Amino acid sequence: MIKLFYAAHTCSLASHIALEEVGAAYSIVRLDLALNEHRTPDYLAINPKGRVPAMITDKGILTETPAMLAFIAQSFPQSRLAPLGDPFGFAQVQAFNSYLCSTLHVAHAHRMRGHRWADDPAAIAEMQRKVPESVGACYDLVERKMLKGPWVMGDAYTICDPYLFTLAQWLEADGVDPARLPKVGDHRSRMSERPAVRKAIAEELA
Amino acid sequence: MIKLFYAAHTCSLASHIALEEVGAAYSIVRLDLALNEHRTPDYLAINPKGRVPAMITDKGILTETPAMLAFIAQSFPQSRLAPLGDPFGFAQVQAFNSYLCSTLHVAHAHRMRGHRWADDPAAIAEMQRKVPESVGACYDLVERKMLKGPWVMGDAYTICDPYLFTLAQWLEADGVDPARLPKVGDHRSRMSERPAVRKAIAEELA
Repeated sequence: MIKLFYAAHTCSLASHIALEEVGAAYSIVRLDLALNEHRTPDYLAINPKGRVPAMITDKGILTETPAMLAFIAQSFPQSRLAPLGDPFGFAQVQAFNSYLCSTLHVAHAHRMRGHRWADDPAAIAEMQRKVPESVGACYDLVERKMLKGPWVMGDAYTICDPYLFTLAQWLEADGVDPARLPKVGDHRSRMSERPAVRKAIAEELA
Repeated sequence: MIKLFYAAHTCSLASHIALEEVGAAYSIVRLDLALNEHRTPDYLAINPKGRVPAMITDKGILTETPAMLAFIAQSFPQSRLAPLGDPFGFAQVQAFNSYLCSTLHVAHAHRMRGHRWADDPAAIAEMQRKVPESVGACYDLVERKMLKGPWVMGDAYTICDPYLFTLAQWLEADGVDPARLPKVGDHRSRMSERPAVRKAIAEELA
């Protein structure tokens, strides 16, 4: 039985969708970031980083979305959420998710988490100002070079898809017009029709 | 035959060390970032992100250090650079490398690459000012909670080790005193004695 610690409207949705896609036995635990529930001693004992997501498995605790997604794919090979027998194909999946984690999500984080990298309110405001440009540049690259379509890796639905879908929830709030990203927009629409996605979102907002 | 595109004093060293550790047949191509060689049309055709590292394999092109390191480990299983048959162990390796990529390296990048997230020189200076604090906090977590010792994952040398070693080259320049990080410092010393590390560094600086 897997236990997923999540917060609404965060990247933890990606792992939640993946758990639902593979039919895992899991439960979810909601943390309210506004109440600093990710900073309590109990949660810091689970994830000393004080971030979501974290996942308790029967082997131990895991963090970091790309690692958790790969773990879910490898633990449920019959669901074929990654090309597990093909190191190059698997690396392409990993490279996409790594880009989302370390570049696209990071660009987005400068809108609401600028305090991680600056204290001066003027600097934090300047970071916020640039978010539409920096996040937009990431999505332009995804649109032009990375999203093969219909799914991220082409015909096969993989662990890249829930991750892109999750981050693409924030496009409008980041000031990026989805109209300039037809493939990303189409992907978002198609994802939102999947039963696993509907169920995960409904559970998080319940 | 693998071809690795690198720049001196960047995270590409991690993949270079790993290629050397496994005894891969590879060549290296140096890019001078100061001359914008990562922005030429030829290189952008290889890596549209305009970053290092990138790796041309006989299957195609790969980018993103965590993905490249996992690819090297999976392509040379006899070198045992990751617990390949153990999804949880593999995920722990991935989680460590993902943290380095998306949190620690990102904190560091605010010292010299602040222009990614702000245009105002005052904001960029403010980001630089906070680097010792933000990078230091990442290393405190690595020291206290993540580096098992003697290697990152404990007794087994894995693809986490060249990655941590590579980023830890920048401790002093980031304003973090290694004296407060005895385990990280010990790891750095032990790594620097490995023949693969010495050879990769010598090749990059030749």
